[in-house]
Amino acid sequence: MSLTPQVSDILKNYESDNPGTKANLVRLLNTGKLAGTGKLVILPVDQGFEHGPARSFAANPAGYDPHYHFSLAIEAGLNAFAAPIGMLEAGASSFAGQIPLILKCNSSNSLATEKDQAVTGTVPDALRLGCSAIGFTIYPGSEYCFKQMNELRELAEEAKAAGLVVVVWSYPRGPMLDKAGETAVDICAYAAHMAAEAGAHIIKVKPPTDALSLPAAKKVYEAEKIDISSMEARVRHIVQSSFAGRRILIFSGGEHADTKSLLETIRAIKAGGANGSIIGRNSFQRPKKEALALLSEITDIFKG
Amino acid sequence: MSLTPQVSDILKNYESDNPGTKANLVRLLNTGKLAGTGKLVILPVDQGFEHGPARSFAANPAGYDPHYHFSLAIEAGLNAFAAPIGMLEAGASSFAGQIPLILKCNSSNSLATEKDQAVTGTVPDALRLGCSAIGFTIYPGSEYCFKQMNELRELAEEAKAAGLVVVVWSYPRGPMLDKAGETAVDICAYAAHMAAEAGAHIIKVKPPTDALSLPAAKKVYEAEKIDISSMEARVRHIVQSSFAGRRILIFSGGEHADTKSLLETIRAIKAGGANGSIIGRNSFQRPKKEALALLSEITDIFKG
Amino acid sequence: MSLTPQVSDILKNYESDNPGTKANLVRLLNTGKLAGTGKLVILPVDQGFEHGPARSFAANPAGYDPHYHFSLAIEAGLNAFAAPIGMLEAGASSFAGQIPLILKCNSSNSLATEKDQAVTGTVPDALRLGCSAIGFTIYPGSEYCFKQMNELRELAEEAKAAGLVVVVWSYPRGPMLDKAGETAVDICAYAAHMAAEAGAHIIKVKPPTDALSLPAAKKVYEAEKIDISSMEARVRHIVQSSFAGRRILIFSGGEHADTKSLLETIRAIKAGGANGSIIGRNSFQRPKKEALALLSEITDIFKG
Amino acid sequence: MSLTPQVSDILKNYESDNPGTKANLVRLLNTGKLAGTGKLVILPVDQGFEHGPARSFAANPAGYDPHYHFSLAIEAGLNAFAAPIGMLEAGASSFAGQIPLILKCNSSNSLATEKDQAVTGTVPDALRLGCSAIGFTIYPGSEYCFKQMNELRELAEEAKAAGLVVVVWSYPRGPMLDKAGETAVDICAYAAHMAAEAGAHIIKVKPPTDALSLPAAKKVYEAEKIDISSMEARVRHIVQSSFAGRRILIFSGGEHADTKSLLETIRAIKAGGANGSIIGRNSFQRPKKEALALLSEITDIFKG
Amino acid sequence: MSLTPQVSDILKNYESDNPGTKANLVRLLNTGKLAGTGKLVILPVDQGFEHGPARSFAANPAGYDPHYHFSLAIEAGLNAFAAPIGMLEAGASSFAGQIPLILKCNSSNSLATEKDQAVTGTVPDALRLGCSAIGFTIYPGSEYCFKQMNELRELAEEAKAAGLVVVVWSYPRGPMLDKAGETAVDICAYAAHMAAEAGAHIIKVKPPTDALSLPAAKKVYEAEKIDISSMEARVRHIVQSSFAGRRILIFSGGEHADTKSLLETIRAIKAGGANGSIIGRNSFQRPKKEALALLSEITDIFKG
Repeated sequence: MSLTPQVSDILKNYESDNPGTKANLVRLLNTGKLAGTGKLVILPVDQGFEHGPARSFAANPAGYDPHYHFSLAIEAGLNAFAAPIGMLEAGASSFAGQIPLILKCNSSNSLATEKDQAVTGTVPDALRLGCSAIGFTIYPGSEYCFKQMNELRELAEEAKAAGLVVVVWSYPRGPMLDKAGETAVDICAYAAHMAAEAGAHIIKVKPPTDALSLPAAKKVYEAEKIDISSMEARVRHIVQSSFAGRRILIFSGGEHADTKSLLETIRAIKAGGANGSIIGRNSFQRPKKEALALLSEITDIFKG
Repeated sequence: MSLTPQVSDILKNYESDNPGTKANLVRLLNTGKLAGTGKLVILPVDQGFEHGPARSFAANPAGYDPHYHFSLAIEAGLNAFAAPIGMLEAGASSFAGQIPLILKCNSSNSLATEKDQAVTGTVPDALRLGCSAIGFTIYPGSEYCFKQMNELRELAEEAKAAGLVVVVWSYPRGPMLDKAGETAVDICAYAAHMAAEAGAHIIKVKPPTDALSLPAAKKVYEAEKIDISSMEARVRHIVQSSFAGRRILIFSGGEHADTKSLLETIRAIKAGGANGSIIGRNSFQRPKKEALALLSEITDIFKG
Repeated sequence: MSLTPQVSDILKNYESDNPGTKANLVRLLNTGKLAGTGKLVILPVDQGFEHGPARSFAANPAGYDPHYHFSLAIEAGLNAFAAPIGMLEAGASSFAGQIPLILKCNSSNSLATEKDQAVTGTVPDALRLGCSAIGFTIYPGSEYCFKQMNELRELAEEAKAAGLVVVVWSYPRGPMLDKAGETAVDICAYAAHMAAEAGAHIIKVKPPTDALSLPAAKKVYEAEKIDISSMEARVRHIVQSSFAGRRILIFSGGEHADTKSLLETIRAIKAGGANGSIIGRNSFQRPKKEALALLSEITDIFKG
Repeated sequence: MSLTPQVSDILKNYESDNPGTKANLVRLLNTGKLAGTGKLVILPVDQGFEHGPARSFAANPAGYDPHYHFSLAIEAGLNAFAAPIGMLEAGASSFAGQIPLILKCNSSNSLATEKDQAVTGTVPDALRLGCSAIGFTIYPGSEYCFKQMNELRELAEEAKAAGLVVVVWSYPRGPMLDKAGETAVDICAYAAHMAAEAGAHIIKVKPPTDALSLPAAKKVYEAEKIDISSMEARVRHIVQSSFAGRRILIFSGGEHADTKSLLETIRAIKAGGANGSIIGRNSFQRPKKEALALLSEITDIFKG
Repeated sequence: MSLTPQVSDILKNYESDNPGTKANLVRLLNTGKLAGTGKLVILPVDQGFEHGPARSFAANPAGYDPHYHFSLAIEAGLNAFAAPIGMLEAGASSFAGQIPLILKCNSSNSLATEKDQAVTGTVPDALRLGCSAIGFTIYPGSEYCFKQMNELRELAEEAKAAGLVVVVWSYPRGPMLDKAGETAVDICAYAAHMAAEAGAHIIKVKPPTDALSLPAAKKVYEAEKIDISSMEARVRHIVQSSFAGRRILIFSGGEHADTKSLLETIRAIKAGGANGSIIGRNSFQRPKKEALALLSEITDIFKG
């Protein structure tokens, strides 16, 4: 199968990567309903680790079973399924070759006393489980940010040599940022740019608000009249901050969205030129049928 | 000998493991009185390290001798014997091949100034001593939890490559948890789930109370009407939190149980669908004859 | 092509380096408009990482695209382009062989809580991207200085063995230094000397003021009547402090310079006997045509 | 030479060790006046490192010379000589093969600001110097105890693979222990047990007093009526706490003992069933002739 | 050339070292005016790193050039030249084989916030630069002492295996020591002894005063009537504390000495039986002719 122009164009941006990594990028882009469009929707399931099992799965108890999520991602025609090592081990063989896997290599939890994460997965783990990519979270602004970037460097160097794709969750937090600052548009753009500079192939950030957090940045946004008035404009700014669109950029769905506002955000992400979404609790916390319907709407938006 | 359906079903859940690890899982499941039932009772003896020799063994001084515990586990028809490196070295040759061994790779002690553990055993140690598994304790909630999970990752990656089984003791403690919180049902379920996500093959937690500790979790338990009214229901919830029963789950006996309440707990563990128990002080702190009688009652419950 | 006397003389100062490193020094010195003169002008683009994308690139949005900077450096006839791993990966193949690359191996950012940097690039990264050199920042005076020097030692040992050039950004800061102290001439000279002692091939410091910061140093400067009255004299002193000119010494442009004062500083750097300049925001934050004109003036000064 | 029954019996307790370690155990047990008895007297000389040279050697200045101690141990017919790397290097060739050597791998000093030790010797050092064993100190109760146990694990794993014997000095100290607590019998027994659990072949503790330090332990000692009324009884309890005598247990001489009380302690150590003594300052701080006389009395007690 | 008896006698003290290290010891002892005498005078130039370039070299600006120091050491007929990696790299090829080199592997600086050092050179660096020895500073009494001793162990193990000599600068400092304590005779003797115990081949300490710093040591010095009344007597005591003269012991010149008092100290060092001196600022901070004259006087004293 020859590549579509969209995938071909994206691939050109990864000019320094080896054929192994390029092949895995193609796997991610050529799977599911969005195959060939250059767009991605990914199912991430690390919420049990981060928030606890009942808070994540009690609303739809089928989700306690790792196989449910593999199936959901496959049936919904998504591009990839991302999870920590334990959940992937529980289904990687049953669903081998049916959907690209992303090994989420570090995780935090709600009992933790510090704004850090444990590294629970490695590149050899990703390889033996047949993954196409590793995932890693950094907290720019946290007192552990340099440590996390050092860990990312080690994992990314090994992953790239092994032909894997590197996905970076860039979630700002820490003493310089209040709650509003964590999703301020200057901070989200900075978070995306840091991930790009640190060598990510795929960048995941949160949908930004129109707040501006760093005074020195605010001055520039106002002086240069950067358009941050709509979600679409903000997304476009973050695409630009990701090496002028040379890096695949995807957004999380947000925690408290109702379906309508979620779909509005998805439309803005599409309109702003980003590559897609990661949809976790918004999909697996409702019955499968409803989840498939919602994910169908989302992939339709990105296709359209 | 072909596998029983119970063991065969359990084995399917470890679909990503190599034949070496599968063989060691079979060794654990096909040893002793519970062979073939899919249930396990394990004798752990690290209390001398954790609490001191007299507090552990003075009540039944035969227990000062490591050989006593090997014999006790073998005569009682248990599935495995778990201990730190020194105790295993003292008997691993005399009892070679007679019972599966679990090398407890980290240990704390009662003189320690911090909620952490020292790593005293390694995967090469486990292999040269003929062990089937390594054991490792994490303290979710402790300020050392990320460090411990990082240590677990390194040991587990090496153990899985070497065909060993990974048993995780998941014991929550730390600044966010008071004494009651350490055994609250939401916390125990979370502890089991974290061990599963971190890649444990076998998970050991404490029997949960009906307390709910994290406010955000409590809200969900109440909204979703999760049944935590009986020990059996709570055990079932923790089985569910262990990847919907895809991971072997065993419970410790608890410190102050009299025999009657201990057996009640065992019955609830069985009824709730968990795989077994770890019985330490409740067995080796009484005369051998009484211990064998008690362990016989316990294995009978799991068999029945 | 045989070497010019200027390049040949410089090369003699690197008498302990292997032919690989010498070849890369020649690549740096024999590229662009200043080829053969023994002078260098380098384009560094890590400001997006250090200060955020909008503060760095909004004034000239073409700069959001990594390819823009490769092109700018090549068209301006500069000696090298320096950037973090992500930006280099985005263009290293398109522009392969057209300009020597310096992989900036560590970076800080404006959300950081500590005066440190993350190591985001490695020697294998530099080699696979076709770089001639690695770049590394140390903060003499910071509580992380020993840590950074240790990291530099590891990277430099590996880089020298691999035939790469080691460029050290030596930027003093920390509890003993107020803002004025960071650019005081005694501190700049000390910063250059530390980089030389630590094994740098090329040293980058900031243009010094005539302030004297350390009391013990001030006494010596006054007693020995060291001339620090003009920028030219101060540059000459720092050249002397870099092993009497045996190490290539270049200066940054400074943050708030208008074009006129920037060119004055460049003239003083030339007159004082240093080897060149690193020009970042002063070039890429204006339209390309203006940037090329400015860089042309600068290279003309160094040639003249 | 065939083994005596005593040595043969001891060797059986080291059933998990390789022939190399067994051979070195035999070397330790079959050297000197106590050869074949299963008893050991060892000369340790690390007091210069721990307390300074004058405090250690001025009383008998011959002791400034490392060769003096090799000679003293050999002439006295002791089982082994233990010292840090520098002192062993100074005589290991002159006295090669004349007495088993123990490389003391970590040391503290009287200028130290923390209750820790530096690791100054390694397993390769022990091997190249012809040593039969490594020695390592842990401080149970210290805030560095887990770190020290981790260091011990690494050294012990390497030593056992190389056929060396592992001797652990287990000296409790730290915030939970006052001066009396450091030698309380429950604490000494616990210290010996921890060393056994951590995999020591030979355990060295201090002679215990009849104090009981941990309240939870005290309760058990009283309830179980453990006999701690005499030094002999206490030694017997510590032998029991060392895996019921399966590990070689030796005692230090104590700092302020006069000769008479020292010999009384030695007799109690013998009577209580321990394997021997380490005699440092009590031997080398007196003239050689007196030291030989004293050591002769001590070996006679153990022989008798 | 056969060895002189003096060198031959010294060599016997290094009985555990391999022929490579012995050959390098001979190189150090058989170079320059003192060849064959068993005495050494070494030129160390790390003051630019430690105190800054102007404070070190402005008094005699020829010293800004690394080649000056190589020449000075060679022309003065010294035994060796010691410097950090950068300074050695700048001249090691021009002066290859003309004088033994000591790579000073760690260095502090005057902007540092902690009593520690950075490791800037390695054993592979020493080998590729043709060095005969590595040099390393420890600060007994500092909170970094154990860390430094651990670093020394790693470097020394590697250096000895590679046939290099290990020179230890032992400079006490830290919370337990006031300024006078740092050079008190008990502390200097202890510092020399620690370096010997840690495995140094050559020990460098500062000339001691007649102060006694540690109360427990003071008691012994007075009780044993250790002669500390003259510099000669104190030097003799420190020779004794260095394994009764089995380790080469050299002294620094001291910071504020005028030439006369410096020469007096040198005479006392000779008379006390030490092996030589390290002369840095006292030589290179005066014009070359004067420096050569002074160094000639010093070597004459050691020869005489």
